[in-house]
Amino acid sequence: MESRNIRLAVIPGDGIGAEVVAEGLKVLEAVGTKIEATHYDLGAARYHRTGETLPDAVLEELRGYDAILLGAVGDPSVPPGILERDLLLRLRFTFDHYVNLRPVKLFPGVETRLADTPTENIDMVVVREGTEGLYAGTGGVMRRGTPYEIATQESLNTAYGVERVVRYAFEKAQSRPRKKLTLVHKTNVLAYAGDLWQRTVNRVAEEYPEVTTDYSHIDAASMFFVSQPERFDVIVTDNLFGDIITDLGAAIAGGIGLAASGNINPERTAPSMFEPVHGSAPDIAGQGKADPTATILSVAMLLEHLGLSTEAAKVEQAVADDIVERLAGWAGRTTHEIGDDITARVSS
Amino acid sequence: MESRNIRLAVIPGDGIGAEVVAEGLKVLEAVGTKIEATHYDLGAARYHRTGETLPDAVLEELRGYDAILLGAVGDPSVPPGILERDLLLRLRFTFDHYVNLRPVKLFPGVETRLADTPTENIDMVVVREGTEGLYAGTGGVMRRGTPYEIATQESLNTAYGVERVVRYAFEKAQSRPRKKLTLVHKTNVLAYAGDLWQRTVNRVAEEYPEVTTDYSHIDAASMFFVSQPERFDVIVTDNLFGDIITDLGAAIAGGIGLAASGNINPERTAPSMFEPVHGSAPDIAGQGKADPTATILSVAMLLEHLGLSTEAAKVEQAVADDIVERLAGWAGRTTHEIGDDITARVSS
Ligand SMILES: CC(C)[C@H](C(=O)O)[C@@H](O)C(=O)O
Ligand SMILES: CC(C)[C@H](C(=O)O)[C@@H](O)C(=O)O
Repeated sequence: MESRNIRLAVIPGDGIGAEVVAEGLKVLEAVGTKIEATHYDLGAARYHRTGETLPDAVLEELRGYDAILLGAVGDPSVPPGILERDLLLRLRFTFDHYVNLRPVKLFPGVETRLADTPTENIDMVVVREGTEGLYAGTGGVMRRGTPYEIATQESLNTAYGVERVVRYAFEKAQSRPRKKLTLVHKTNVLAYAGDLWQRTVNRVAEEYPEVTTDYSHIDAASMFFVSQPERFDVIVTDNLFGDIITDLGAAIAGGIGLAASGNINPERTAPSMFEPVHGSAPDIAGQGKADPTATILSVAMLLEHLGLSTEAAKVEQAVADDIVERLAGWAGRTTHEIGDDITARVSS
Repeated sequence: MESRNIRLAVIPGDGIGAEVVAEGLKVLEAVGTKIEATHYDLGAARYHRTGETLPDAVLEELRGYDAILLGAVGDPSVPPGILERDLLLRLRFTFDHYVNLRPVKLFPGVETRLADTPTENIDMVVVREGTEGLYAGTGGVMRRGTPYEIATQESLNTAYGVERVVRYAFEKAQSRPRKKLTLVHKTNVLAYAGDLWQRTVNRVAEEYPEVTTDYSHIDAASMFFVSQPERFDVIVTDNLFGDIITDLGAAIAGGIGLAASGNINPERTAPSMFEPVHGSAPDIAGQGKADPTATILSVAMLLEHLGLSTEAAKVEQAVADDIVERLAGWAGRTTHEIGDDITARVSS
């Protein structure tokens, strides 16, 4: 990795995507990595121009990169779901991003929405499954538009798919001081899928005697995120439950402007993809109001994934320092200014 | 209703169920209703004694009551899901409780977990569908226990089932000062079901020109519950999303000890069932530690459903007054003491 440049595919996407990605790239260059970034104009604009979301040829080209940095996809001018499914989810599925890694961590100096909650009480990592469950998109509709319509959605869960993400989560738990892993599911209602998840956790747990395992229903877990976030260290959960609790996690850990994520292919058979948890926020696009911090933290995850741990730590520290300054009243900066300030810190 | 007694079936259930239900009944009697309560010993104890969860004959008997008051079901001695599905969900399904009504309201004097949130910012009602979706329990498993296992769950959504709950939600929104209805779903991923829900809301909306309609993805809604709960007035959502956000709602509105619910059959073709949102909490059962307030507020919903609005308001007011006292430092009461205090208020 050291001798050659990092080949990075950049998909700014829609809305604020381009603005936040620009700042992420600035930081990436400033931290001293040799990167070679190629931009791809996928998203609403291209869809309107050509009708394409993600042409097969582009998908194959993307496969050749070391990593992908994505801003955000989704625009009100495109019917809901098209860009999400045919672009974002297609990338996650094709590149087998079975680990969707989302830290939920309160940085010192960030105010949480929760009353009287010390910083150290919110420090977890959600390992969300990224390729199965209800995101398979299977299901159907019959007698559409009639009073007899029936619409179904299917959650597909395989031993193969569940075991690999559970193993990843155990490794992650093993590497952290508390060594605690909580399965979040709804086993009392989703009996078939819940049984597979719970049995898999029980079986893999035998190989990790130092890791304490716990279980929480998704409803109770959502409550605990608010009432007792300190219950959680590493969480493993399915695609949909993970989607929900990571937005909730962002809400308690300083807001969506700070929430980073990695869509990881741990075997590196295809590039992993890093993106802020937030959406394209069309209402504030182009106004310099978006906080690029989530993208910059996603860049740190990207560096870590590529083995550049020193650089990753440097970016994370720069963000942490920048955030402490905010506490001191340094608010109201534009997207650019926040990016510049963090860039200055990593270059110094 | 006035000339005869209310015939009430009481299912205390497991864990703290019996303790909280006893206080609910005390308040119900004190408020001056003529009730005739019959207890049913359904739950873990009966399951262990006889292997029965809900015998058909009992189910038919229950059908004859005016309403059902339920404590909580679930015990660690019974494999997860058995009592939930064969008792609780069977009641909801058989008696067609298609509206699961869950107010999320911050009482003055109650501390919310959210920082700097005025009481009036948390005042919504969640109309959760109660008979469809992933709760249908359909799905299956193949090659169980092998590396090739596949487990599926199906979400079943019908025009019939969605429209009736959506209509109920519009009526509810129409009756409230803000007249705002938010559909919560995940239309960008659950395309078939989401399309049915969204189309139904759009169509019924035409009949309610005074109601403002809004949409929020479940992940964003979970975030907004924490960051901006004032966005919501009435929410309509499916069974699983409703399960999750009402626990989250409890967490922001003073905790699970205050969250009431009604499983409503609006056409009254079968008895409606009222229950606290909390579970059986086996860890604190029998210790007089459970807060019966959620059950007492569920009793108020029961009274309202039976047309006894004056009595319902009296119970709600008694709870509100009791809660203000708590603020003044009146903590540490037992289950009985809280019940006694609220009873004294409704009798005075
Ligand atoms: C845009 C949407 C399809 C996506 C998801 O549901 O995974 C988003 O909410 C996320 O969490 O990355
Ligand atoms: C016990 C369980 C089956 C139930 C549900 O999921 O509906 C509970 O969580 C609730 O919200 O009433």
